[in-house]
Amino acid sequence: MAENENSIRFGIMGCAEIARKVSRAIHLAPNATLVAIASRSIHKAKQFAVQNKLSENVKLYGSYDELLDDPFVDAVYMPLPTSLHVKWAVRAAEKGKHVLLEKPTALDVKMFDEMLKACESKGVQFMDASMWYHHPRTAKMKEFLSNSDLFGRVKAIHSSSSYHGTPEFLENDIRVKPDLDALGALGDTGWYCIGAILWTMNQKLPTTVTALPTTIRNSAGVILSCSASMYWDEEQIVATFYCSFISHETMELAVCGSNGTFHVEDFIIPYDESSADFSFTSGAKFVDLHVGWNVKPQAVQWLLSYHRKL
Amino acid sequence: MAENENSIRFGIMGCAEIARKVSRAIHLAPNATLVAIASRSIHKAKQFAVQNKLSENVKLYGSYDELLDDPFVDAVYMPLPTSLHVKWAVRAAEKGKHVLLEKPTALDVKMFDEMLKACESKGVQFMDASMWYHHPRTAKMKEFLSNSDLFGRVKAIHSSSSYHGTPEFLENDIRVKPDLDALGALGDTGWYCIGAILWTMNQKLPTTVTALPTTIRNSAGVILSCSASMYWDEEQIVATFYCSFISHETMELAVCGSNGTFHVEDFIIPYDESSADFSFTSGAKFVDLHVGWNVKPQAVQWLLSYHRKL
Repeated sequence: MAENENSIRFGIMGCAEIARKVSRAIHLAPNATLVAIASRSIHKAKQFAVQNKLSENVKLYGSYDELLDDPFVDAVYMPLPTSLHVKWAVRAAEKGKHVLLEKPTALDVKMFDEMLKACESKGVQFMDASMWYHHPRTAKMKEFLSNSDLFGRVKAIHSSSSYHGTPEFLENDIRVKPDLDALGALGDTGWYCIGAILWTMNQKLPTTVTALPTTIRNSAGVILSCSASMYWDEEQIVATFYCSFISHETMELAVCGSNGTFHVEDFIIPYDESSADFSFTSGAKFVDLHVGWNVKPQAVQWLLSYHRKL
Repeated sequence: MAENENSIRFGIMGCAEIARKVSRAIHLAPNATLVAIASRSIHKAKQFAVQNKLSENVKLYGSYDELLDDPFVDAVYMPLPTSLHVKWAVRAAEKGKHVLLEKPTALDVKMFDEMLKACESKGVQFMDASMWYHHPRTAKMKEFLSNSDLFGRVKAIHSSSSYHGTPEFLENDIRVKPDLDALGALGDTGWYCIGAILWTMNQKLPTTVTALPTTIRNSAGVILSCSASMYWDEEQIVATFYCSFISHETMELAVCGSNGTFHVEDFIIPYDESSADFSFTSGAKFVDLHVGWNVKPQAVQWLLSYHRKL
């Protein structure tokens, strides 16, 4: 999109695969411009620029510090291993840059608080790069879940997020390395499950979290697959989730309410970029003799074409 | 259907609401005939016969013992409260009748074993009346789950079964009474979740079962809602389920495998009597730039009309 006065000028620190998607998204967004790319080697930065057909106006840096010193960069996107987040997010904040961090943002609350504190003290924005919260479908999902007639009150939530890593991934990816992304599948795909459950609960934290006796780790101790339950005592709501690097692709959220049921099976990345849907059932009862239901699930669809017309 | 020589002659003991569905099913089945109905009062038996337009050939009894003494009854279907199962199932077996019990079959393993022993010693069949195992769709579901290419190995299972009981149900139904169906929602809807999970696992029992800290009981101590996880140590498979009398209608089974994902949302009672489907996704990967999936869920449908042609 054309640069305009109110455009946020982004720099990207690190040329991870996911940076390809985000650089494209920055390009497509009407209020953002990609102005710089940094890698630990200038060669990698150049390679990234060529591969992704970046504009010649995008500056290329061979170190992260150079990018942070660029006064034309308003915000930095960091697709770095989680173990490097504190160092670079704090440094970026100190340089007055807004921080968009790839997930998981931190390995523990202490690290997280340190970054937040740095951003708050400099008055810059801290944000994680989970995209699905900002998809137009998500707002429609929330409308249904907030409808006291159609959905009622939340009773139970289940989420699953998984993919089957290749042998190469399971051997070498940063997400299976204890010194890089030590939270493994919990930090990568479990991040989405926990996020979706908390999103459903309007960010209210659970009273109890229970790890289920099902954790599978690699030889270095990094989680490849695990499950947990969460419980909200006051509301008597239960949530369960499953996350994994060793299962088929899933990205599901199912919420059972007092009056309705909600399902989405591609909440993180919709099947198609141009449309997305979810389904719900409301007021379901059996017909006489229990030979069927009075209602069936209904699909609600969001269409990119429709959205663009707006 | 017309009676034939090989027809199983059923007697029904108890005129519960569910007996209406089962008497119709017996009528529709080509190899079964309803020959007698018993209630604790002859008036109730007559009322049931009239309401359900039973043939005049169906004998009506005002006591269960009379039905068990009828030599023309081969098998009895018992939609009785679970607390009465041992007494009547054992007595039926002793009279040489096959036993079809409404679920939950027993309140504990001791009761269950007592009934099995009685049936085995008399050489009669013991069976529970969970219908979905025998639906043609279920065989198709198993085909997919057994396909090592499309589905691969089971990794995680989640099931939910719930309905929102009316105030009248929650006050007076046998399923909320500690002296009748003391297992409450766990015995009624949880029965299906556990059944579906064990069906997925080809009846292999889990190594560990963990009740989640989420049980809701009524004032008499009967479970209205609960969740649990199950774990198979050797296969490293995790299952979770949610069952409830105080949530919207659900009857879901979701299975994540190594190569595919399986979903059915009406496994106990299909939305329609004339057709039923489930969906699966297999070999899913993200397309380049993670802007979509290479495949979408596919629906497999079973149609009654097609089935009848066969």
